[in-house]
Amino acid sequence: MPTLTSPRENFPRWYQEVVEKADLAEHSPIKGAMTIKPYGYALWEAIQSILNEKIKQAGVANVYFPLFIPKSFLEKEAHHVAGFAPEVAWVTQGGTKDLEEPLAVRPTSETTIGEAFSRWIQSYRDLPLRLNQWANVVRWELRPRLFLRTTEFLWQEGHTCHATLEEAQVEMNRALKMYKDFINNYLAVYVVDGYKSESEKFAGAETTTTVEALMRDGKALQMGTSHNLGQNFAKVFNIQYLDTQGKKQFVHQTSWGVSTRLIGGLIMAHGDEKGLRLPPRLAPYQIVIIPIWQENSERKLIESYIKTLTSKLKSFRFYIDWDEQNTPGWKFNEWELKGVPLRIEIGQQEVKQHKITAVRRDSGEKIILANNNIQANIDKLLESIHNDLFLRHKKFTQERTFNVDNLSNFQKIISKDPGFLRSGWCGQLKCEKKVKETTQATLRVIPFNQSEERTCLVCGQASKKQALWAKAY
Amino acid sequence: MPTLTSPRENFPRWYQEVVEKADLAEHSPIKGAMTIKPYGYALWEAIQSILNEKIKQAGVANVYFPLFIPKSFLEKEAHHVAGFAPEVAWVTQGGTKDLEEPLAVRPTSETTIGEAFSRWIQSYRDLPLRLNQWANVVRWELRPRLFLRTTEFLWQEGHTCHATLEEAQVEMNRALKMYKDFINNYLAVYVVDGYKSESEKFAGAETTTTVEALMRDGKALQMGTSHNLGQNFAKVFNIQYLDTQGKKQFVHQTSWGVSTRLIGGLIMAHGDEKGLRLPPRLAPYQIVIIPIWQENSERKLIESYIKTLTSKLKSFRFYIDWDEQNTPGWKFNEWELKGVPLRIEIGQQEVKQHKITAVRRDSGEKIILANNNIQANIDKLLESIHNDLFLRHKKFTQERTFNVDNLSNFQKIISKDPGFLRSGWCGQLKCEKKVKETTQATLRVIPFNQSEERTCLVCGQASKKQALWAKAY
Repeated sequence: MPTLTSPRENFPRWYQEVVEKADLAEHSPIKGAMTIKPYGYALWEAIQSILNEKIKQAGVANVYFPLFIPKSFLEKEAHHVAGFAPEVAWVTQGGTKDLEEPLAVRPTSETTIGEAFSRWIQSYRDLPLRLNQWANVVRWELRPRLFLRTTEFLWQEGHTCHATLEEAQVEMNRALKMYKDFINNYLAVYVVDGYKSESEKFAGAETTTTVEALMRDGKALQMGTSHNLGQNFAKVFNIQYLDTQGKKQFVHQTSWGVSTRLIGGLIMAHGDEKGLRLPPRLAPYQIVIIPIWQENSERKLIESYIKTLTSKLKSFRFYIDWDEQNTPGWKFNEWELKGVPLRIEIGQQEVKQHKITAVRRDSGEKIILANNNIQANIDKLLESIHNDLFLRHKKFTQERTFNVDNLSNFQKIISKDPGFLRSGWCGQLKCEKKVKETTQATLRVIPFNQSEERTCLVCGQASKKQALWAKAY
Repeated sequence: MPTLTSPRENFPRWYQEVVEKADLAEHSPIKGAMTIKPYGYALWEAIQSILNEKIKQAGVANVYFPLFIPKSFLEKEAHHVAGFAPEVAWVTQGGTKDLEEPLAVRPTSETTIGEAFSRWIQSYRDLPLRLNQWANVVRWELRPRLFLRTTEFLWQEGHTCHATLEEAQVEMNRALKMYKDFINNYLAVYVVDGYKSESEKFAGAETTTTVEALMRDGKALQMGTSHNLGQNFAKVFNIQYLDTQGKKQFVHQTSWGVSTRLIGGLIMAHGDEKGLRLPPRLAPYQIVIIPIWQENSERKLIESYIKTLTSKLKSFRFYIDWDEQNTPGWKFNEWELKGVPLRIEIGQQEVKQHKITAVRRDSGEKIILANNNIQANIDKLLESIHNDLFLRHKKFTQERTFNVDNLSNFQKIISKDPGFLRSGWCGQLKCEKKVKETTQATLRVIPFNQSEERTCLVCGQASKKQALWAKAY
């Protein structure tokens, strides 16, 4: 069992080691790309299946649009192409022939889907039109970090058209709320929700909303975004409908997405010296059972005891580690590294006394449980692990959120104790730029929840908005 | 309701119309590519979720490998690159820079996964290693047909490594059997399973097995394949393990896949003059309920009747078509086109007599059901629709399978009545080529089930194998 770098000493190295040693993913020999291994992919599948249900329940239908986007499509919306062009991979040869027009490997699909919307939408009866796809996207990346920034990643992208601005705003907010609830309730991660500034919004959007979480090194991670695209794409792709008066109108659009980056977020929000701490509702295994025996006669007793036990645990995802190559101690470390929420140890003592010994991964607490009512008790334990992970992360975020009212204070705090810095902001780009240049922190989010009126931390003018700043991934 | 071309008159046009009018998919403005629309994607999601369960139950783990493959990887196995190079899309520019080495957009992933296997496998303890991924692949296509041949398609690809040839053969057969059962039991399509000839096998494989189905125009469609790759990729990627004696050995590999092409198969195996006939176990809606009313007072009665009815139908996927824009007759046609297995009509008669009127899509049969025991009765009906679709397709395939013992007979039959042609075959490439040149039919499959000894239909020599030939998609 190789030791793990301490996250306090070197957080980036700790992160890289955890991802590789827990067998979640690895860097691919294809520069910038990532291979997602079974344990990591199981997390993505869990995220996907839960979120897919929520998307469907909201009445959004799944579709699949092509991977390749003609250059001319991508170039139609000026802000959009300016934002994405530096990151695009271009296909210039198909089969044995050079292509007349290069094809972008989709960095996002507003343009292809916009073209289709322009043909599919004729009348107000066709609205709202709300679609989603699960897909791979490519954004060229020179400094890859597993799950956080890779040339290719997996995501879902929702794309909707509405008759009115108000409906588009409702949709944008609905999607962001869905992400916030999902991240709270399944990843057990606390987030701050709000608006992006003009300079940080999605290339081509009118408004971008975001959920931001604080990682354990005090840096922020954008966990999901939801955009009101206004009529920007509608105008360049000519997405119009006949309203009830027979008048042509441009639609109002939204788009929204989360990606495999969520996995990076849950690692960095919960992980500790021993490795991963997985939230029980997403963990590929919620329970690992470690049998402890010396002799074969003992093993048989323990085997039959575990058989009876697991017949009561069928509603959980569990794994029994019978491997004879490694000691129980080695296994404890290994499964702690892999973040399994609950360990159950079964040895002679447990068999004799009709009990089980459970150890919580989140707190290290050891709990002796009697055999009766075991399913309900373990259910409660897992619920409690989820709640405690969430509350711990919420507390951590709140403790690492500092009020500042001038730039020199800002610098002092962020160099010593990085986290979210809350301040007043006049709303001007020049003040936002000044903060970034001076401190390397960016404006992460203008929270929906605006607690107090302040003055701008740079220019001292009356503040229209309160902003949350941080160094970010 | 626009009329549909008859499949007897023009099968390819009928196919294209059904796919587009039933709103399954459309040609994308990106040449060769396809957009899968909600109704078509729902079919793919059903296929995916059922097959994914079966793959997991077999102990295979899901992973995700990169989309891009360096040119040098693809070139390592000579047969492999020869087979795929003409179909590859090449990325030559990433971000703003020209790439030093072009990247292939994966046409299949044996090479990338082979490179990873060479690092992941050290000892016999690491074997077997059995992985699967759900992904998009790209094979450049100049004459696209929706779901059958498109530049990009969706599929699953299984990749496994084994210590011995025997284990690899067991795996190859297991995967093919899984496909056969799945296609029989969910698509209600009859298939012939067996081997591909040397000239038709997968580029880089030792042996390819296949399941082939006969479409209603008498042409064959390859529905899924499973390959024994031997040690071909192991040798070029150096995938070796230390055996129990401490000796280095190359692994034996398999790969196997099915794709969105399955959707094309089920359309062409079951469809008729009215459109799609979907198998109940995959149909996005198993039941469509059409309320028939004239006046508002009637509507209210019918509404409450349907409410009571559907409370008993919760185990089925159903849709109630309350649309006021269209007549019941229009709706009958529309939902027949969309292939919903069972239509339930509810009008005043049904309400008065406490019954429902059900109409089977497969046979057109009208069935009056009493209200009691409705769930069990509908369950039986859907089962019977599945079975009848399958038996009808099996009978069709058997009736369209002809024994031939010489080439001139072969030509006569296939020009008049296309289908599977069964003959003896000496096993020589030159005779296989001769058939293809003379008749345009290809050797689809050497069936596992070899019924009789024959002589080669071309050279008249004693036949080692019996072959099934057909014109194919």
